[in-house]
Amino acid sequence: MVVDTDFRPLHALPDRRAVEIVDQTQLPHRWVTIRLSTASDAAHAIRTMQVRGAPLIGATAAYGLALALAQDPTDANLAAAHALLLETRPTAVNLRWALDRCWRAVVPLSPGARADAAWREAEAIATEDAAINRAIGEHGLALIERLAPDRRPVQIMTHCNAGALATMGLGTATAPIYLAHRSGIPVHVWVSETRPRFQGSRLTAWELNAQGVPHTLIVDSASAALMRQRRVDVVLVGADRVASNGDVCNKIGTYEKALAARESGVPIYAAVPSATIDWTIDDGDSIPIEERDPEEVLDAGGEEIAPPGTAVLNPAFDVTPARLLTGIITERGVCAPQALAKLFPEKARP
Amino acid sequence: MVVDTDFRPLHALPDRRAVEIVDQTQLPHRWVTIRLSTASDAAHAIRTMQVRGAPLIGATAAYGLALALAQDPTDANLAAAHALLLETRPTAVNLRWALDRCWRAVVPLSPGARADAAWREAEAIATEDAAINRAIGEHGLALIERLAPDRRPVQIMTHCNAGALATMGLGTATAPIYLAHRSGIPVHVWVSETRPRFQGSRLTAWELNAQGVPHTLIVDSASAALMRQRRVDVVLVGADRVASNGDVCNKIGTYEKALAARESGVPIYAAVPSATIDWTIDDGDSIPIEERDPEEVLDAGGEEIAPPGTAVLNPAFDVTPARLLTGIITERGVCAPQALAKLFPEKARP
Repeated sequence: MVVDTDFRPLHALPDRRAVEIVDQTQLPHRWVTIRLSTASDAAHAIRTMQVRGAPLIGATAAYGLALALAQDPTDANLAAAHALLLETRPTAVNLRWALDRCWRAVVPLSPGARADAAWREAEAIATEDAAINRAIGEHGLALIERLAPDRRPVQIMTHCNAGALATMGLGTATAPIYLAHRSGIPVHVWVSETRPRFQGSRLTAWELNAQGVPHTLIVDSASAALMRQRRVDVVLVGADRVASNGDVCNKIGTYEKALAARESGVPIYAAVPSATIDWTIDDGDSIPIEERDPEEVLDAGGEEIAPPGTAVLNPAFDVTPARLLTGIITERGVCAPQALAKLFPEKARP
Repeated sequence: MVVDTDFRPLHALPDRRAVEIVDQTQLPHRWVTIRLSTASDAAHAIRTMQVRGAPLIGATAAYGLALALAQDPTDANLAAAHALLLETRPTAVNLRWALDRCWRAVVPLSPGARADAAWREAEAIATEDAAINRAIGEHGLALIERLAPDRRPVQIMTHCNAGALATMGLGTATAPIYLAHRSGIPVHVWVSETRPRFQGSRLTAWELNAQGVPHTLIVDSASAALMRQRRVDVVLVGADRVASNGDVCNKIGTYEKALAARESGVPIYAAVPSATIDWTIDDGDSIPIEERDPEEVLDAGGEEIAPPGTAVLNPAFDVTPARLLTGIITERGVCAPQALAKLFPEKARP
């Protein structure tokens, strides 16, 4: 296990009877852990966003499937648990990727061997994710190093939380930031708060603070103005699903940042493990966009901020066309969004 | 007086001893009126944003000056009250415009005549503002009518509150919407919530609801995605100050909407009374941008949404370059932002 941060949002217990997660809906105020003992527990944790972030959703779902098989390793239960976990959230493709990977690992096995095999597969997914984070971090670090001589500290903008709290390691968008910070490159991070759920202010600010990385919180709407004022050197975001053409689906507001970055000549990268690339779809318009509860918008920090009965549209994600992104940072290197297939020739469809 | 809505954010009392304002920080939950009897009361109401919106700030300040002169009409008090009111907020130019207009009206007069003259000037500013709103509404209505045959309802996006609550009449950005609605053109308004103070959800949603105009609330970050999905026909915003070259300073986030509008071919207009145009400055980069209390960002609806001590940058406004706007709607008509000087030749500098 690569230990990369002082905190981790998911711990598998040695007795293999449960995983312990951090209830991220309680951050930044309380560090509350919850024990997940069943697939249903795992599904609930994903659905209620106690765990969130594409890679962490994938890892949690994999452990959920293993927990299901420990109780009942039959084909019927395997299928039921797979379906239960898959339907928790529609957009992040890591969920299906992790579930399918566990499924393939166990379905040829005798029922008695399945629980152990599923657990090992979940562990492999988790361990690999940490290593992938680090590789993304190193490729991203090289980009930051190129910016560093011109400007200190390097001004990095991020959105939502593509951080350690979203993964099993250093995070995706945050990995280059943490490696730069540790290697002595002065960095400063603009954290956009990420309405409606405030993952920027609640989670990213929390973990940057825990890691000692200087940062400043802004409302989402201030991003473009800061870029226009030349106060941003690079934008680093994560992704929930990347289409095979390089279109990037990420937290709502990413598209606006990409438009602003292009306008001001600021490079913008999505940092993603290859598991986030959906090779089965041609472009971002095919990605299902989750629409979430209006209450997330109406209820800000416990107070209703609109008249009773106000209609709300609450899309959780948007799609940034490949042409608006400077590049995609993967564990295998950095490439233009349109060149993903060259970086992963074995996965791309002919 | 043109009575245009069922509510008005400021009423001058007939005894000329006070004005009654609605405490807009209490909306949408409570309709609380506050009596302003002194210039100091008026300054406090503007500073704490009990009244806000460029035209309403101007009218409130004008009455504040009149109230000051009713107590003490000397040159010294005139200067003190002017300075006190002027320093309340830095960005909206209507504040200086209204104060200077009252000053000019009273400074040649004997002290005994000043209070009455100032009050009449404040009333004139208020009455003219309502008429200007209506003229803006009629010019904007013509734009909406041109969109209407293609698409019903006409999908209009706005930001912050450039509404009746920001003026003495129908509002600026909302005036065309209200006139369209009343003339039977089906409209639907996308209301972006406007972090950090939620003027969209707290105020615009409230008044659209009061006027029976269909609307849907979104987070600010969702604006660009909706435009990309062709769900917006036109964007209408207000402004706090317009430079002589047509650059528009308005609520933070307006610039992002303009970038998204251009990208998706959606027309975007700023609706402004001519008092919002600052003929003394060449471009938007000269406009002072107010930076407000970090607590506005950190405290969302009563709950701290970031770790204690998190640094915050909270600019209240941004600047949208003239080239990104389709046009500016004034009481005198609609023009390209760069053509303001042609519309107001008597005001433009040679």
